[in-house]
Amino acid sequence: MELVTPIDLRSDTVTKPDEAMRRAMAAAEVGDDVLDHDPTMAALEERVAGLLGVEAALWVPSGSMGNLIALFLHLERGDRFLAPLGAHVLDAELGTAAWLAGGMPHALASMTPEAVIAAGGGESPYYGLRTTLLCLENTHNASGGTVTSVDEHVSLVAAARSIGLAVHLDGARLWNASAALGVSPAVLASGVDTVQVCLSKGLGAPVGSVVAGSASFVVEARRVRKMLGGGVRQGGVLAAAGLVALDRISRLADDHSKADELASGLRALGWEVAEPATNIVLASVPDLDKTLLSLREVGVFASPMSGKVRFVTHGDVDSSDIAEVLRRLREDV
Amino acid sequence: MELVTPIDLRSDTVTKPDEAMRRAMAAAEVGDDVLDHDPTMAALEERVAGLLGVEAALWVPSGSMGNLIALFLHLERGDRFLAPLGAHVLDAELGTAAWLAGGMPHALASMTPEAVIAAGGGESPYYGLRTTLLCLENTHNASGGTVTSVDEHVSLVAAARSIGLAVHLDGARLWNASAALGVSPAVLASGVDTVQVCLSKGLGAPVGSVVAGSASFVVEARRVRKMLGGGVRQGGVLAAAGLVALDRISRLADDHSKADELASGLRALGWEVAEPATNIVLASVPDLDKTLLSLREVGVFASPMSGKVRFVTHGDVDSSDIAEVLRRLREDV
Amino acid sequence: MELVTPIDLRSDTVTKPDEAMRRAMAAAEVGDDVLDHDPTMAALEERVAGLLGVEAALWVPSGSMGNLIALFLHLERGDRFLAPLGAHVLDAELGTAAWLAGGMPHALASMTPEAVIAAGGGESPYYGLRTTLLCLENTHNASGGTVTSVDEHVSLVAAARSIGLAVHLDGARLWNASAALGVSPAVLASGVDTVQVCLSKGLGAPVGSVVAGSASFVVEARRVRKMLGGGVRQGGVLAAAGLVALDRISRLADDHSKADELASGLRALGWEVAEPATNIVLASVPDLDKTLLSLREVGVFASPMSGKVRFVTHGDVDSSDIAEVLRRLREDV
Amino acid sequence: MELVTPIDLRSDTVTKPDEAMRRAMAAAEVGDDVLDHDPTMAALEERVAGLLGVEAALWVPSGSMGNLIALFLHLERGDRFLAPLGAHVLDAELGTAAWLAGGMPHALASMTPEAVIAAGGGESPYYGLRTTLLCLENTHNASGGTVTSVDEHVSLVAAARSIGLAVHLDGARLWNASAALGVSPAVLASGVDTVQVCLSKGLGAPVGSVVAGSASFVVEARRVRKMLGGGVRQGGVLAAAGLVALDRISRLADDHSKADELASGLRALGWEVAEPATNIVLASVPDLDKTLLSLREVGVFASPMSGKVRFVTHGDVDSSDIAEVLRRLREDV
Repeated sequence: MELVTPIDLRSDTVTKPDEAMRRAMAAAEVGDDVLDHDPTMAALEERVAGLLGVEAALWVPSGSMGNLIALFLHLERGDRFLAPLGAHVLDAELGTAAWLAGGMPHALASMTPEAVIAAGGGESPYYGLRTTLLCLENTHNASGGTVTSVDEHVSLVAAARSIGLAVHLDGARLWNASAALGVSPAVLASGVDTVQVCLSKGLGAPVGSVVAGSASFVVEARRVRKMLGGGVRQGGVLAAAGLVALDRISRLADDHSKADELASGLRALGWEVAEPATNIVLASVPDLDKTLLSLREVGVFASPMSGKVRFVTHGDVDSSDIAEVLRRLREDV
Repeated sequence: MELVTPIDLRSDTVTKPDEAMRRAMAAAEVGDDVLDHDPTMAALEERVAGLLGVEAALWVPSGSMGNLIALFLHLERGDRFLAPLGAHVLDAELGTAAWLAGGMPHALASMTPEAVIAAGGGESPYYGLRTTLLCLENTHNASGGTVTSVDEHVSLVAAARSIGLAVHLDGARLWNASAALGVSPAVLASGVDTVQVCLSKGLGAPVGSVVAGSASFVVEARRVRKMLGGGVRQGGVLAAAGLVALDRISRLADDHSKADELASGLRALGWEVAEPATNIVLASVPDLDKTLLSLREVGVFASPMSGKVRFVTHGDVDSSDIAEVLRRLREDV
Repeated sequence: MELVTPIDLRSDTVTKPDEAMRRAMAAAEVGDDVLDHDPTMAALEERVAGLLGVEAALWVPSGSMGNLIALFLHLERGDRFLAPLGAHVLDAELGTAAWLAGGMPHALASMTPEAVIAAGGGESPYYGLRTTLLCLENTHNASGGTVTSVDEHVSLVAAARSIGLAVHLDGARLWNASAALGVSPAVLASGVDTVQVCLSKGLGAPVGSVVAGSASFVVEARRVRKMLGGGVRQGGVLAAAGLVALDRISRLADDHSKADELASGLRALGWEVAEPATNIVLASVPDLDKTLLSLREVGVFASPMSGKVRFVTHGDVDSSDIAEVLRRLREDV
Repeated sequence: MELVTPIDLRSDTVTKPDEAMRRAMAAAEVGDDVLDHDPTMAALEERVAGLLGVEAALWVPSGSMGNLIALFLHLERGDRFLAPLGAHVLDAELGTAAWLAGGMPHALASMTPEAVIAAGGGESPYYGLRTTLLCLENTHNASGGTVTSVDEHVSLVAAARSIGLAVHLDGARLWNASAALGVSPAVLASGVDTVQVCLSKGLGAPVGSVVAGSASFVVEARRVRKMLGGGVRQGGVLAAAGLVALDRISRLADDHSKADELASGLRALGWEVAEPATNIVLASVPDLDKTLLSLREVGVFASPMSGKVRFVTHGDVDSSDIAEVLRRLREDV
């Protein structure tokens, strides 16, 4: 039996730091960011705040912590919040939105202004139940990396505002939405109270996300990060990689092209594949577990998502890898 | 302007204790139920356990506390649980299932064994997320007092068991389901781990519910009741009313007849009304707030539920009251 | 072996409702206090608010729930609060002040203004730790029913205010402090934000306590009571007993006399007994478990408290019972 | 006015990664440690488990998260735990031991086997209150880096075991205790269930701690780390620095010598200074805020701790820096 080199399309989180990032990490100017100040951290946070068009930003070890901090600060214990069905904050953060941030989730099957108002507005459905927050997710992972357009975003935020809801945007892959639409991240975060973006995933940093919003939000967020154990000392070594990662935003269009190539190729092989909007390809298969196993046997790593096979393109695979994936599937699966 | 006597159909919770209950309360033998033992409490708890076919039971001040204690003991922080869309534990308990009991709710749009298995079984959708509990609600308030049949109940419990879920039954109005189906409450609670039933509502006790299950569950439940501040001293005065209330189960068929009369009468007046299964009548109206107000102006009190008008029949209204309601609506609304 | 009638001095919570209370319960005018309004509840709450000199009050099923609601509303998750060593909120509420109300307790070995300021004021001992609440307890159970004088109370509240702390008073036995000092409960609650008082214990109601404060506090407290499952329907049956109980405040001086008689008698028998300040007598013994058992064998029920034997006098024992207790101990223990 | 180079003795957390660490970070072999496996992380965790004599270990972004995860897994909501007065888990983790881990803290003024048994053993002080955990801290920061000897450690663990308590050791500076006593860290962690050690502080890694215990504990700990947002992707870049840091344990004796030099020098200048046991020097001063300010004016950075001035020696200051500190104080403060 011949060994094949695995091609890992499970997630864009598998990308490894490149040489430029490693050099930046090794050379980073650092300080104790818990006690007072790490200059590279500060530079990163300022740059992300600028990109998102908000006052301030805070580095966190993971996107999950960024979302958790935002929800913790938006929600009083018992508040209801709205989020799209399949949202990361609902299904992929181990219930912390509920037990730790204190919120009662209410999933929206369709993300329209009307659905937001119907679910969150009007009379309280019961003595004292309060709906106080709308969570958005752009791109939306569970739907296959789909993009919320600027118009949709604006109308959803307006609907939330009209009934007094705060708005948090899980923008773990907001950079991809920005690349797909050709608009700045700031436009796609317009009007929200808080937003979280990842430096790993498509941008390739080894560790870290950023949660951002008003200056007063970030003061409180820093305190909650300390609570959760996310305050780090000489974090500048990671922030340095994050600064390099931010130079890679323009690279994401390549990932989207590779996703298109993969989707076309799979369709040509008879797979049932949705048109990818960004870097995620979802394929419907009769037997998910069996397909994932067959793929793994030919060295193609994919992951389950919403009952389908998810392939994610990223900086550590190129067009020839996609071609190789298709070649292996043509022959073996 | 003539004053009319209001007819209160907002809920069966508005029923007032009758003379027999009041006499029982005044005569109750009592003890300190926190320090050791209240004999009337003990008698009530034993009787309810018998009716439900479980080992043991515990009085609680409200159905909400009964459900909360059960969920608290079933769920580890972060565990996901399944419940029908619109369930009381999801929408009407101020988010405590999430922030206090520690669970991440997942609402099921349709309550079928297949839906339970699809949502709760198979591979964990994410690193370590656990689905551990199915919540049932019989009758189901938000759907209009609908009844889960014995067959449906058994198949849902079997589905939950097949994927390792515990089962809690919110039986706030289980007595109504029992009366509607002509089967004992024990049959409708068969196979569950825990069940909560109300002594107020249709049975007319002034205060109190009971949560029941295994003997070891009740030992722990007593401790959690103390935590929540639900341990009471000479609670026998309330348990005495509860014991009288349990003699009223057979009376519930009357409430269902009155609901039928109301539904027929409303339909005759051109209202769009679902066939009532028990003591709840849901009417679809173009403008909910306006209809509730118009009703109130003619002395008919109803409540909003699932975007509709909810009328609930109970022991403090009789057939002539239903006729009077219909008379008023014929003339005034 | 002759059987003796037990004399139960474990706690004043063992008192049973008397005939007047039972008649009041049987005759109480009631309503649905969750849906809208129970008139007897409203009368009770108004009367207690008046006695305590605060704007509003809310009935709760237990003192533990009253304290829990107050702490929940005073504390943000992670806030530190100060309380006397051995306080009920620290040692006798199953940790809910911490995990459920969200506070980090800090016990004060001595309750002086200086200790409050040293522990709660000055620079935060760590990045972002906030001390926000002082809990008082008058009378103080674990110290043997000791009384905080008006001067002490005023100076402790002033100290808390000077460093920005809110103040909650656990007044489960505030009526006893009032009787012992000959001042109104309102004087002993002066300046606090919230206060909890019990209707059971010395006053003899079967079930219930009241938590009180500003009108806006009570609005929120009603919501939290619902969360915890403490909202009850026709609670007027219990409130009626509470209203009768409030007529019994003047009776408490008798309990204090009985405690004096017991303490003197025990000392005469060679026991080491602190001078009782109210209705609690603490006796130091070499072997606590053995003494409690010996007492029980002669039909004298006492309880352990702070490593000592606690005897509590109350309305269901009279001077002849105390004499009988002393007679039994003279002969048998 | 001449500018002086600040000498930062606020904490050993201010140490910056050295060249060897930076090179290791730049060269680290990495993987996605959330999705599956990062080889450098795995190597670090295995090495720490070996040093501590336990089955398994887990990297965490901070010592606070390590302690939090351990407490979360040891404690059921409402459980009481014992910890030394001034412990980091009590005073320096923003109350998370209480509201998030779910525990009710009970501070011990003296850490003796007798005090542990008195506080945690015997009859439950109240209906159902459970004491389930003893937290140790070695070295003990708030007491001035004091060391628990092997005999003391063994007797405290034995006392905890004798009454059924689990034991967690906050070993943020366990390496210092090991260096001071000349025994291996494993000896100082003998018999505990879980232990947390820091890679920053004296060892100089930029970011990270490790929590360790049984293999099954680490499986659960990995899940809780994910919950808290502490799961990181290519964390090997940090683990690489941690591996270098572990080579620096023998260096800590130098920090202790420098602390001795500082203490002697301060005493010679008339300061009231406790004999340092490790790398922490606590000085009693009449006016803490004023002294800290005066020190800062001459470029000596110290921090407040337990009402005293705390100086911490570490790898980024050497003997000549200590001499310079003393020179500045001689002249200016």
